[in-house]
Amino acid sequence: MIDLEQLHDCYVKTGSKIILLVVDGLGGLAHPDTGKSELETANIPNLDAMAQESACGLTTPVMPGVAPGSGPGHLALFGYDPLKYLIGRGALEALGIGVELLPGDVAARGNFCTVDDNEMLVDRRAGRIPTNLSGPLCERLNEITIDGVQVDVFPVQDYRFVLRLRAPGLSEDISETDPQITGVEALKVKSLSNGSDKTVNIVNEFVQKARDVLREEERGNMVLLRGWAQLPHLPAMGDVYKLNPAAVAAYPMYRGLATVAQMKVIPTGKTFSDEVDTLYQNYEDHDFFFIHYKPADAAGEDGDFDAKVKTLEDLDELIPRLRNLNPDVFMVAGDHSTPAIMAAHSWHPVPFMLHSELTKGEGISGFNETACNLGAIGRIPATNIMLLALSHSGKLTKFGP
Amino acid sequence: MIDLEQLHDCYVKTGSKIILLVVDGLGGLAHPDTGKSELETANIPNLDAMAQESACGLTTPVMPGVAPGSGPGHLALFGYDPLKYLIGRGALEALGIGVELLPGDVAARGNFCTVDDNEMLVDRRAGRIPTNLSGPLCERLNEITIDGVQVDVFPVQDYRFVLRLRAPGLSEDISETDPQITGVEALKVKSLSNGSDKTVNIVNEFVQKARDVLREEERGNMVLLRGWAQLPHLPAMGDVYKLNPAAVAAYPMYRGLATVAQMKVIPTGKTFSDEVDTLYQNYEDHDFFFIHYKPADAAGEDGDFDAKVKTLEDLDELIPRLRNLNPDVFMVAGDHSTPAIMAAHSWHPVPFMLHSELTKGEGISGFNETACNLGAIGRIPATNIMLLALSHSGKLTKFGP
Repeated sequence: MIDLEQLHDCYVKTGSKIILLVVDGLGGLAHPDTGKSELETANIPNLDAMAQESACGLTTPVMPGVAPGSGPGHLALFGYDPLKYLIGRGALEALGIGVELLPGDVAARGNFCTVDDNEMLVDRRAGRIPTNLSGPLCERLNEITIDGVQVDVFPVQDYRFVLRLRAPGLSEDISETDPQITGVEALKVKSLSNGSDKTVNIVNEFVQKARDVLREEERGNMVLLRGWAQLPHLPAMGDVYKLNPAAVAAYPMYRGLATVAQMKVIPTGKTFSDEVDTLYQNYEDHDFFFIHYKPADAAGEDGDFDAKVKTLEDLDELIPRLRNLNPDVFMVAGDHSTPAIMAAHSWHPVPFMLHSELTKGEGISGFNETACNLGAIGRIPATNIMLLALSHSGKLTKFGP
Repeated sequence: MIDLEQLHDCYVKTGSKIILLVVDGLGGLAHPDTGKSELETANIPNLDAMAQESACGLTTPVMPGVAPGSGPGHLALFGYDPLKYLIGRGALEALGIGVELLPGDVAARGNFCTVDDNEMLVDRRAGRIPTNLSGPLCERLNEITIDGVQVDVFPVQDYRFVLRLRAPGLSEDISETDPQITGVEALKVKSLSNGSDKTVNIVNEFVQKARDVLREEERGNMVLLRGWAQLPHLPAMGDVYKLNPAAVAAYPMYRGLATVAQMKVIPTGKTFSDEVDTLYQNYEDHDFFFIHYKPADAAGEDGDFDAKVKTLEDLDELIPRLRNLNPDVFMVAGDHSTPAIMAAHSWHPVPFMLHSELTKGEGISGFNETACNLGAIGRIPATNIMLLALSHSGKLTKFGP
């Protein structure tokens, strides 16, 4: 794991190159009619052929039985203990819509809500007002000024927005304003630790001013704020592993997670094919590339088994382009499983393969849950794949004399 | 693990006997021409037959992806967390040539080097002077006296030696004198923590006196010192596990590692056959035996696939003699893998088998990486094998009411 001080002398900088392809929601479960998972159903000759020449296994993102969100799922693959390095909800919501978060910024998830003339909550989601109504409300919130603080409000979707506060000495240790029930007033923010009084005062001032700005609205006449979060303090992936890491991801959330690990984020297009182009164009400039494939997770979350199969087949067609780069290590991993029959992230171990000059195949027939379970890597914590990548590419020397 | 306080009440002393055979560098990788590893290639009917009656698995010495040195590889098999109990380079170098280290002693790796008339380093290895020249230099260094300190210098090979300091209140937290480059002076030793000033003064006095003693030499006219280390403070294996453990190893390094675990080291001969004789002669006096087989690692490090196969076949011939002792538990393990195709220690999980009255076989065909991957023990940290040994021999009772 990335903060294992004992290994720090073992990392060495070399010219070898590593590609980590993260297939979001990669793992699945058998379809009840066929007994085959999405990967087993898909026609993925390129991934299967690669598995036959790779070291294979299964990764456990957090712990057996624990389904991770995107934050812990990715941090684990980068080597960060996901139970130690927590990304708060406000910060992840901000990253997910591409909002820049700097160390020290505090972000919150905001709801527009409806209160009556006595300030009592009537609807915690303001009748789920649509984005075209909430957008202008966000613009009005953005006109709020607070001395010494940069206040920014970003629309998310429908009644949801992100509040970002930027000022010296802010703290995430403050309470939420959402009482979780109607018929009562929104809560005042309170300090949850020493040193957060300044933030408490700023937020209570913001909420008061927001109420004033929105007072005449019919539905979104007040705001609720929760999930206060700053970026976690993570060791920089590049510093620890002696890498010059880069991220290529079409979706803002994953660019944000790469930023948290202090990777260089390379601008790219909207599709995975664009991402591969970007990787080609920047291949000489970095020694580690995180490249992200989103569609598998989206189809899984939709509960659309056939669509997820199709996303895996689409991915498979682009595998040869990645292999043609001839990286010293090419890993295919997933941040978590998203079985279509569950229509949700799950806790199931995720197929993993690592290809290098040292992997010659081990009788594994293809790239899927069942086959990878027999692989030589076995079942490992996702936090360990970076160690395997580094050792297979000559970047991790012997531990101890 | 040996320092798991919660288990301490579970260890019981019994008359049963355990043999741990450590095959150094046991694990391997497939030969590119045949697709078979060294163990799969070797004709090892006795080990294969034993596997068919054993519980089998794979051990991870430190973590996935981490290739261990001999120190962490062995400490893990004895039950010590290798990331917690670190043996410094100087101490291991001393153990490796059979130098006695007592708690409190400080050892360093020394080089003879060449400096010019202005004390500038010209050659950090003194032209790699051969042992027959460096031996007499060590003898002269041994004439150096420092008040209140026992100073001993031991030749290693060529330009290398070990310095051992014995005195009350020494510390390993001092800096090295090797600047790692030529054209500059050797560094003065500095304190790296409170309480190491005494050691700093002793070492700087030693270096000055060494320079005086060697001044007239053409090549080895100065010394460089690095890798300062004391023995780590380990719980005694015998105390914790309620065993009376003994070690039988032809090579000094492994006798040294057994000493670190506070096993009784039994003098033996130069070959594994000698070791087996020694084990027979002392079988009544102990309940746990660590017996070490070196040749597999040596051949692996040489990158000689066929030679490593041969060492495994040689070992196999002596397995019946060990089995004839009829120990309650007989384990065959490795401290790490040394694949001949890598010519180095590697991170790959190591085949492991445990034979006892309770193991009746589980469909495992032979003793190799692929077969053990399917064994009932699965993939476990190497630190756990002692628990399996103790439980299979009736020395580890139920945990918890």
